[in-house]
Amino acid sequence: MAKVDIQKKVLSANDEIALKNREILNSKKVFTLNMLSSPGSGKTSVLEKTLDHFQGKKEIHVLVGDVQTDNDARRLQKYTSKAEQIITGGSCHLEAKAIGAYLERENLDSADILVIENVGNLVCPSSFDLGEHKRAVVLSVAEGDDKPKKYPAMFRNADVVILNKMDLLSMTNFNVEEAEKNIYDINPGLKIFRTSCTNGEGFTPWYDWLEACMMK
Amino acid sequence: MAKVDIQKKVLSANDEIALKNREILNSKKVFTLNMLSSPGSGKTSVLEKTLDHFQGKKEIHVLVGDVQTDNDARRLQKYTSKAEQIITGGSCHLEAKAIGAYLERENLDSADILVIENVGNLVCPSSFDLGEHKRAVVLSVAEGDDKPKKYPAMFRNADVVILNKMDLLSMTNFNVEEAEKNIYDINPGLKIFRTSCTNGEGFTPWYDWLEACMMK
Repeated sequence: MAKVDIQKKVLSANDEIALKNREILNSKKVFTLNMLSSPGSGKTSVLEKTLDHFQGKKEIHVLVGDVQTDNDARRLQKYTSKAEQIITGGSCHLEAKAIGAYLERENLDSADILVIENVGNLVCPSSFDLGEHKRAVVLSVAEGDDKPKKYPAMFRNADVVILNKMDLLSMTNFNVEEAEKNIYDINPGLKIFRTSCTNGEGFTPWYDWLEACMMK
Repeated sequence: MAKVDIQKKVLSANDEIALKNREILNSKKVFTLNMLSSPGSGKTSVLEKTLDHFQGKKEIHVLVGDVQTDNDARRLQKYTSKAEQIITGGSCHLEAKAIGAYLERENLDSADILVIENVGNLVCPSSFDLGEHKRAVVLSVAEGDDKPKKYPAMFRNADVVILNKMDLLSMTNFNVEEAEKNIYDINPGLKIFRTSCTNGEGFTPWYDWLEACMMK
C-alpha cells in the first residue's frame, strides 16, 4: 500500500499561484489586502478616502477588478498614479493568476500596501485566494443586517468588516447590533469598523489598523 | 461534407431544461418572473408589497434562492402559503434543474404568477435561463448609478428594472437620469419603474405591468 501523507494539503491550481504571489509579496514586504463586497457598498469610496489620507506618507498600489469599465481605476487615479484596472470581461471574481501577472510587471519595491479591489460579488470571490495577507469585506447599511447570515463564506474568510454608509442608518431598518452579532456568530475574531464616506466618521481606527498591518 | 443546420441553436444542458420548464409553465399559463439583483437591493421587500397587493385577487407562488438561510421565504410566508426556499448551499445562482424539480412537486394549476427570487448576485445568475418569461432586475439607489455599465450582462438580459429605495435618493449622489441613460444605452427596450418600499411610491405601474403579463 502506498504511503499517503495526509498532512500534505492538495492545492488547487489557483491556490498554488496564490502561494507564490504571497511569497513575492512577503519578500518585498508589501502588505496586501483583498477588498470584497456586493456591488455598490462603497469599496472605491473607502479607497478614495484611504489613498487621500496616506498620500505623501505611504506608497499604496491598487489593482481594481471589474466585469466591465475602468471607472473605478480612473476614480482612484485622482489620488495615485499606482491604480490599475483589470477588466474580467464577464468573470465574477479575480483569480490568483491575474495578480501573479500584475506582480511580474509592476515594480513594488517601494510599496507599503497593495490593495486588490475585487469584483462586486458577495459569493464567488470568497473562494479564491489571491495571495493576500488579509481580507476586508465592505457591507453597506443599505443592504440589510441579515446579509452575513445569507452569505456566510464571505464573512467567515474575512479579517475585517467595514460597515459603511453609516450616514444612511436612520433612513433604514438596519440594526447595527444585530448585524454585528450575525457577523461575530460566523467569525468571532473579526474586527468591525463603522464608517461613512459622506461625513468621514470612523476612518481613524481603519487607518490605524492598516498602519499596524504594514510590513516595513 | 455533412450538412450543418446553422439555424439550430446548440443548447447547453441548463438551457434544455429551461426550455422544458417554459413549456410546462406555458401549458399551465403561469406567467413566470426571474427577479435578480445585488444582495440587499430590496427584492424581498418589493415582493412583500406585491404579494400584499394581489392577496385574495391573484395566486402568486414564490421560489426564493439563497446561499444560506430561509429568512426570505419566512418573510414572504406572512403573505402567502405558496413561498418556498431553495438553499443553494454555496452556489452563486439558481439553475433550471432546481426549478424543474419544483415544477414537478408544486401544483401550479390555479397559479397566476410564479416569481423566482434569484440569489443576490449581479453577475452569475444572468447567464442561467430558468425557463422564466421575463426578468426583473432590482437596483437600489444606494448602489450607485454606474452599476449598469459595470454589470452590463445583467441589464442586457432584463425586461424590467426596478429602481428601488427612491426614498434614500436625496441622501446619495445617485443621479437617476444618468442611471437610466446607462441602462437604456445597454438595453433600449427595457422598462424602468422607480419605487420605494418605505413610502410605497411607484408601485402602481409595476402592478399594472404584472397584470398585463399574466396569461389567464
